[in-house]
Order: sequence, then structure tokens, then C-alpha cells
Amino acid sequence: MYNKPMLQAGSLEGKTILVTGGGTGLGRSMSKYFLELGANVVISSRKEDVLVKAAEELMAETGGKVLPVTCDVRKYNEVEAVLQSAKDTFGQVDGLVNNAAGNFISPTERLSHKAFDTIIGIVLQGSYNCTLALGKDWIENKQKGTILNVVTTYAWTGSGYVVPSACAKSGVLAMTRSLAVEWAKYGIRSNAIAPGPFPTEGAWSRLFPKNLEEKMDPKSRIPLGRVGEHQELANLAAYLVSDFSSFVNGEVITIDGGEWLKNGGEFNFLDELSSDMWDEVAQLVRQANKK
Amino acid sequence: MYNKPMLQAGSLEGKTILVTGGGTGLGRSMSKYFLELGANVVISSRKEDVLVKAAEELMAETGGKVLPVTCDVRKYNEVEAVLQSAKDTFGQVDGLVNNAAGNFISPTERLSHKAFDTIIGIVLQGSYNCTLALGKDWIENKQKGTILNVVTTYAWTGSGYVVPSACAKSGVLAMTRSLAVEWAKYGIRSNAIAPGPFPTEGAWSRLFPKNLEEKMDPKSRIPLGRVGEHQELANLAAYLVSDFSSFVNGEVITIDGGEWLKNGGEFNFLDELSSDMWDEVAQLVRQANKK
Amino acid sequence: MYNKPMLQAGSLEGKTILVTGGGTGLGRSMSKYFLELGANVVISSRKEDVLVKAAEELMAETGGKVLPVTCDVRKYNEVEAVLQSAKDTFGQVDGLVNNAAGNFISPTERLSHKAFDTIIGIVLQGSYNCTLALGKDWIENKQKGTILNVVTTYAWTGSGYVVPSACAKSGVLAMTRSLAVEWAKYGIRSNAIAPGPFPTEGAWSRLFPKNLEEKMDPKSRIPLGRVGEHQELANLAAYLVSDFSSFVNGEVITIDGGEWLKNGGEFNFLDELSSDMWDEVAQLVRQANKK
Amino acid sequence: MYNKPMLQAGSLEGKTILVTGGGTGLGRSMSKYFLELGANVVISSRKEDVLVKAAEELMAETGGKVLPVTCDVRKYNEVEAVLQSAKDTFGQVDGLVNNAAGNFISPTERLSHKAFDTIIGIVLQGSYNCTLALGKDWIENKQKGTILNVVTTYAWTGSGYVVPSACAKSGVLAMTRSLAVEWAKYGIRSNAIAPGPFPTEGAWSRLFPKNLEEKMDPKSRIPLGRVGEHQELANLAAYLVSDFSSFVNGEVITIDGGEWLKNGGEFNFLDELSSDMWDEVAQLVRQANKK
Repeated sequence: MYNKPMLQAGSLEGKTILVTGGGTGLGRSMSKYFLELGANVVISSRKEDVLVKAAEELMAETGGKVLPVTCDVRKYNEVEAVLQSAKDTFGQVDGLVNNAAGNFISPTERLSHKAFDTIIGIVLQGSYNCTLALGKDWIENKQKGTILNVVTTYAWTGSGYVVPSACAKSGVLAMTRSLAVEWAKYGIRSNAIAPGPFPTEGAWSRLFPKNLEEKMDPKSRIPLGRVGEHQELANLAAYLVSDFSSFVNGEVITIDGGEWLKNGGEFNFLDELSSDMWDEVAQLVRQANKK
Repeated sequence: MYNKPMLQAGSLEGKTILVTGGGTGLGRSMSKYFLELGANVVISSRKEDVLVKAAEELMAETGGKVLPVTCDVRKYNEVEAVLQSAKDTFGQVDGLVNNAAGNFISPTERLSHKAFDTIIGIVLQGSYNCTLALGKDWIENKQKGTILNVVTTYAWTGSGYVVPSACAKSGVLAMTRSLAVEWAKYGIRSNAIAPGPFPTEGAWSRLFPKNLEEKMDPKSRIPLGRVGEHQELANLAAYLVSDFSSFVNGEVITIDGGEWLKNGGEFNFLDELSSDMWDEVAQLVRQANKK
Repeated sequence: MYNKPMLQAGSLEGKTILVTGGGTGLGRSMSKYFLELGANVVISSRKEDVLVKAAEELMAETGGKVLPVTCDVRKYNEVEAVLQSAKDTFGQVDGLVNNAAGNFISPTERLSHKAFDTIIGIVLQGSYNCTLALGKDWIENKQKGTILNVVTTYAWTGSGYVVPSACAKSGVLAMTRSLAVEWAKYGIRSNAIAPGPFPTEGAWSRLFPKNLEEKMDPKSRIPLGRVGEHQELANLAAYLVSDFSSFVNGEVITIDGGEWLKNGGEFNFLDELSSDMWDEVAQLVRQANKK
Repeated sequence: MYNKPMLQAGSLEGKTILVTGGGTGLGRSMSKYFLELGANVVISSRKEDVLVKAAEELMAETGGKVLPVTCDVRKYNEVEAVLQSAKDTFGQVDGLVNNAAGNFISPTERLSHKAFDTIIGIVLQGSYNCTLALGKDWIENKQKGTILNVVTTYAWTGSGYVVPSACAKSGVLAMTRSLAVEWAKYGIRSNAIAPGPFPTEGAWSRLFPKNLEEKMDPKSRIPLGRVGEHQELANLAAYLVSDFSSFVNGEVITIDGGEWLKNGGEFNFLDELSSDMWDEVAQLVRQANKK
């Protein structure tokens, strides 16, 4: 059942939501579900052809309205242009999903400082550019709004081998919590999702060459023994951009099957022990206690 | 719109959920919504008359099936008896909501060690008793299950003036995250909700004498400028006990309007009270408990 | 150099510190260093013979004064008796180290509820009993004091297979943070240490049968590739009970070589890749980006 | 006693430590104590005159060796030049303290995207530039090293009115934890300090116009009822760059008197300022920057 849509029909009726990186991967899955729930969706990305094709497909699949606008989120004037197009088309924007991201796995000492700059630019600068442009517009027009940032579980634990992404996503998390407090008085909520592994064609094949994917076998890394389904993420995202979550503010919700906890908790590695081994352990403990 | 029910009709059809402390306050509100979504609900509490009345009302309001079972969650054999009654009536239990709690506000140095024992008993021991009884049953019968623990935002920040509750809820949070990993292999998920202020007749009048309630003006404490609606909590709880959240595991979701981010530990503001005011509070609490 | 004593000589001169579980393991190591720095130390434990022997050895080794008092920290009157003995002997107590603990590794479903009660009793109830007794005494006598609680890294991540300990230590962590705020006005600070693996004869052979110890090879689990030295922990503990840390309050300091982070961060497992494999990864990424 | 030096004499003998922003404020205080403990210190900053004067004073005060090198940490080649100068003078660098920072208080919607870029540049880009340059050098030369990052308590809670700083410091925290794991195999440790209020002439008068300082009365905000002393921070910093903390890795130590636990995000209290007061603040900041 875990790939069934969750919210009541029409839950996003009358809302317009901007999804950066909305033409592919999880951004596309979220956009699709928002459309199914009655929202208009603006999708942006640097790749015009991908974007236009995705918009056409999404409209065909859902019957909803999609506006594709090419944009490099690192450039503030391009972000302002997306907002203007969205307002010209739909009147106003009600929600922003900062989903556009870049990442690559590498030992940090093999990176150049420019590689850092690139990821910080797309992820952190891109997110604050969009947030600032929309926030200023909402506040000026005394309009309510909702921000949803897609981060990662390593935004707080950190993680080796994806350090620029960890720095950038962590910055986005801080922005989420900061503005949740500061902008609440204007009726603007800020929340985040930290997804574990939700495989997508593009991102995963780029991040992980085939031989690495095997090393990441979800059965051993993720307590629930499987990766996530896109609809599961879309359900949670729709909840967070909808009015149903009106009292949720400044929160980051992890949806990873327990992955980060498993590998963090000190004795979770004992999962590998068989029942027989536990019998043996119990016996040894009893003997030790007798002494 | 924030007091509208969220999930598709029938989302909990065929499930039986045990809600401790389900006869009053937020426990009652969650139970009611679970019933509306098609679940059978078992409610437990120490007060038989309150429980039976709540069961009758809930059935009348929703048309669902409610089994009230008197139980002191600190007594493991009584918890086992609840489980047995539930199985006798409904065949099996699918979800557990550890909601029963106790709390009082007081400077810690005015407390006796027995006051600590009482709160740890109800909140922490009660939660692990229920969790252990149901977990053992689920594992033995190779049945899936879902645990939802109601904690507080001060489970991680701590808070003065509610220290026994902070210790107990923090323990429940650790149990949530620990079992999310350990028991996932059996198909058992564990999650938690950390609610901010959701006023309820009983709990709040007991916790806060009138003169204190004014000190807690949500407009200054809660960024969103209001307290929570019970249906908002019920929506989130229903999501977490439903299959829609199948990939959410080991997570604690805060629903407090941003209160803890703005203020830190929830009751630390009571620093402002004088010793005389604490005398007055103590007297009011004694009176409330006599009723 | 990492096993050298850190603080200036005489740093704890004139102070009396109570260390629960101070007769063995890390408690003994901390006590020894406190003595070397000039403190009087009160050690308590349930085992009188172990305690008396440890006291004699510690005095011989350091030339300091040690008072051993038998005590089950679960019994409040016994804790009060320790405090009275300490005051009779040394005039007053200045610092409390809640170090007494119990733990065992086991699948949770194999535990009885009584096993939970035991660990919660020793660790959580024991810690709040000691804290309450000393805190009341300090506040009544308008005396400053310092509390140092020994917790674990899984106090916040949780951990399977040590669930009662995780619940109890998490409760102690919440107490640390709560009282850091509430009791600061009385000049009482509260802090905690979360140690990773610091092997001790007793605790480790009890927790881990030999075959398990091999599974826990620190070279793979701990980024720094080694376990901790007792003096390293003693240095940190001495800092936290000394006046040098006067502005550190409500803090829990982890000293684990990076263990919990390594196993938590999502991509840290890539540590296993060789340099050649990274070359291959880099090449694949370049190819993917060309497409 | 809380302004006494803590470590044994000579604790940093033979080490060379680079402190960015080391010519003023807390950077200067840390540098001074490192020198007193026997270290050579390299200080960098954009302001040559300030830097040279500080170097002369520090040498006069401590008898140690200080190398001042002008550097904008946002420029990678300038960072590399600092490293080269340091190696030319002292042979090698053993420790890096990423202390250079920028900040200003302002409602976020009054900021331009360029204001964000500036703070992210100085704080986050500056920190990873220095870290990358030194890390590469250490790894290439098979030399051990220690990184200490100065962050803030709002790196994890976030805080309104200092959002660019919150994003940047949060990114630095993620870098700390990530590299603590990834680079531990090379003998490189990474840790951080999160200081609460430690007043310094420059930073505070710039951040807070006089009328605001009153609003921040430490007696109400900080449980311990006072701000920090520079030597307290210097003690903790010296511990973390010394070998005494050899098993502390990936840790961020808060030294704030309990402020964040009591209040949440450090500057959220600025919610109380009116729009007119913000105009005034903006004017004062402009004047301060002109000096």
C-alpha cells in the first residue's frame, strides 16, 4: 500500500507551487502529485529541453497546468524572472520547493575549491536566492506562503565523500529553521524533508557507478530492508506544502527507513548476530554475573 | 482549513490501534480520528468511569468500535491483560500509541524523589511495558506492527520545572529510535510526535493555574502566533500509524508552530516565578488533584 | 602524548567530589585524576569490599583522601547517607559525578520488563536520586556545585540491543540540560560526557564475550582507528568539574574518536574504497557528465 | 578563577597554528594563549595594519613568534600563499583555527542576495578554502593536523535576523563532522566550538547598537547570569588544538552558559523590534562600517 496517494482529492486546489529542479527525479514526482491534488506547478531547471518535455508529459498525465521556466538558481535575476513568469501566468505563487541540487561523491582532498563553489552555488545559494525572492514578494504583498526544502540526513551528521553537499544542505537546514521563526509573523512557514535513498535514473547513476550500488545494498544499510518509493516522498511533501500541516513549522522530517539511525547507534551492528549466537551471549553473561 | 481531516476515507480500515490514555485530551482526539478512518480502537486508562463514558461517546460520534480496558500501565500484567482483551475482541492489534502521561510543573528542588518515580513510572515504564508486551506478541506471531510515541519538544532540549517529565519523555524518544532499527526486521516501525501546546481541558488546567496561562501567551512564544488544533495533531498521528508512512521509521516529528526553535526548553520561562507564586501553584495543583 | 595529565597542578585543590561507581573502571580513573589534582574524593558502590580496596589503593597511589561509602543509588535514603558521611568527613561536597551504570546487550524481545526496571533504576533513578539529594543540600546551604553525568553517544541516536540503557542514559541527558537552566541561578552547573569505547576489564568482558569483541574492531568502527585511553577521559572530566569550565553549562561532550558520526553519515562507508577505485569512479563520473 | 589559564605550561610547544581573523577579538585572545603555551602562531586578516600591529603586540606580550599574513580567505590563491609563508617561516603548520567571520543583524527580507553571498563567502567559503589548502598539504606530506572551527549555537537551531551567518556556520559545522570521519585516517582531527556571548569591542559594537545591548541583558538570557570571559574560550580552544583532546573528533563544544537551551535561536528575540528601530539599526551599521 505504500505507493498509494494519501491526501483527500483537491487538497491543493487553487495553489501554485514552484518546484526547482522539478523536471526530473524526485522533483518531477512531487510535481506530479501536486498536480493530481489540484495545484498549478511551476518547474524550473537549467535544461530547457528536459523541462519543456517534462511539462508536457506532466500535463498529459494529470490534466493540470504546468509552467516550465528555464533558470539557473545561482543567478538572482533569473530567479526573479521565474517568479514574474509564474505571477503573470497564475497570479501568485503560494509554495516554494527548493529541490534543485547537485552532488558528487569524491574524497575531499581530490576536489578543487571550485568544485565546492559549484555545489554551494547550486544548493545553498540557489535555495536562498529563491527563498529571498519569494519571501520579499510575499511580505510586500502581505501574502501567505510555504517553503519546503529538500535536504539530506547528513545535513546534521555530516558525511565524508560528499562534503560540499553536506555543507550546502546543512546551510539550507539552518535557513529552514531560522526563517520558520523569523517569517512566521508574515504567515510564511518553512519546513524540510530529509530523504534517504529514493533511487532515480539520473541522480543515482551519476552518483554511483554500478559497482558501488552493490556496496550500498539497502538490505544491510536500511533497517526496513528497502529503498523508498517516490509516492511516499510525494505524500509527505504534499502534506508539508498543504494547509494540513499548518502547525508544523521549522521541522525537518526524515524519511529514510531508519538508515541514519541504524548506522549511527553504537550497537546496531549486532544485527548481524544469529539467534544461536545470542543464546551463547546470554549464557556467557549469566556466567560472568555469577562470579 | 487547518482543522480539516486529511487522509483519504478508509485509510485505517481493518486495523486495530491501542491508545493508552485514549479516553481524554489528545488521546481521545487521536482515537476519534482513527475511528473515523475505519480503525477499531482500544483505549486504556486508570479511570474506569471516564474510560467507559469516552468509549460510548466515541462510538456514538463515529460509528466505530471502541474497547475500553482499565489499566495501570506501570503494571506489566495489566498491560498484558489489555493486549489479551484486545485480541479476544478484535483478533489482533496493529498499532500502539503510547500516549498516557503525567506531568506537573514545579521547581525541581521542591520535588521528592517519589514524585520523580511516579512520572518515570507512568511515562517511561508505562511506555516500555506496552511496547515490550506488544512487541513480543508481534514477533512471536510474525505480525507487523506500528508504534507511535507521544513525546515533547523538551525531550531533547530538556526543560526546567518539568524535569521528571523531561527525563521520562527523553527515555521514550531513545526507545523510539532504538527499536526503529532493532525491530524493523520484524516489520515493526517506531516513530514519535513531539507536540507543542495543544490545549486540553484537563491537562492544562492542572498544569497551569490561570495566572500562569497568561504568561504563556502563544502570540509571543509561538512564531505562528497560535496554539495547535487537535485535528492537526490527529492528522499527523493518523499518517504515522497508517501505511502511508511506511518508509518513515525512527523519526520524531515536531508539531509546535516553531515554539522550541524560538524559545528553547518549553517551560524555562518559569524562571520568572517567585517563591511565593510557586507556593500558590503548589496549592492549586493539590486542589486540582483532589477533584 | 594522549595519556598525559592535562590540567595545572592543584586545579581541584579544596574541592570534594562524589563519584558514584567510583571504585572500578572509568569511575576509578576519574577519581584517581581528581585526587592527583588535589581533590578529596567520595566513592560509592554496592560492593563494599571492592570499594574499600579501591579507596586504599587510590590513597596509596595519589596521597589524597578517599572516603568509600557503600550505597545502592536506587535507594534515596542510602544516597542521603552518603551525602551525610561525606559532609561529616569533608565538610561539604562540591561536585557530583553520576557514573554508576548497568548495561547488557540483548535483543529487546528477549528481555523481561524487570530487566528494564533494573537498568532504569540504576542509571536513571540512581542519577536523579543523587542529583536531587545534592541539589537540595546545595540550594538550602546556598552553596555552589557542579554535576557531571556520564552518558553515551546512543543517548540521542538510540541503539538497538542496549535499549534499557539507551532509555536511561537519554533520561540522564535530559536531566543534564534541564537543570543546567533551572539550577544555574543557584550557581549549580550541569554537564555530561558521552564516551565512546574506553575498555575496562569489568564492563567490557561482561558486555562483550570475546567473539564479539573482534566484531567491534575499533579500526573499522572508529575513524581514529583506536579506542580511548582512560587519562583522556579523566582530562575531560577534570575540566568539566573544575572552575576552568565555568561558562560551560548544559553541554554534553562526546569523546569517541568520531565513532557515532562515522557510522551515522550516509556515505562514510565509502571509506572502504581504494585509491584505484576512486580513480575509476572519477572516470565514470566524467563520462556520465559528458552525456 | 574562571579567567585563569588551564593547561600545563608548554602544552603547545613545537606546534604552529594558523588562526584566521587572528588579529582581533576572540581570534586574538586564542592566539595569545596559544603563544603563552609555546606555539608559533600565524594570523591572517584582510586588514594589514591591524594585523601587523596585533602581531607586534602579541609578541611583546608573550615572547612568542607571530607571523602576520594579509589574506582574503575567499580567494583560494591567497590562502595558499598564507600556507606557503607559514611553511617558509616555521617549516610546517600543525593546526588551523577557522575563526574569520562576518555577520550583521537584519530582518532577512531587508537583505539583498549579495549580502548573503558576502557572509557565505567569508564564513563558509573562507573556511573550506583554508581547510582544503591545509588538508591537501597535510595529506600530501603525510603530516598530522588539527582543525578547529568556530561556529555558533544557532548553527543547529538556526536563528532569525542573522540568517546568512546561520547558513554559513551550519555549513562549517557539517564540514567539521564530515571531515572528522573522512580525514581521520590521515591523522587529521576536526572539531568545533560554539561560543555564546563573549563580548569584544569590534564585533559587538557593530552587531548591536547600544539600545539593543540592553535588550540582551545576560542576566535574563543566560542561565549563569553573565557573559563569557575570553580566557574561558581560549582554554577550551587550546584543549581542542592540543594533543590532550586526541580522542575528541567531530565534536562541537558549546560554551554559552546554557543560553541556547534556555532561549533557542540566539537572535530570535529581535522579533520585538519595530520597523523604525530596524531603520535605526541599519543606519548605525552603515556608520560603523564607514569607520
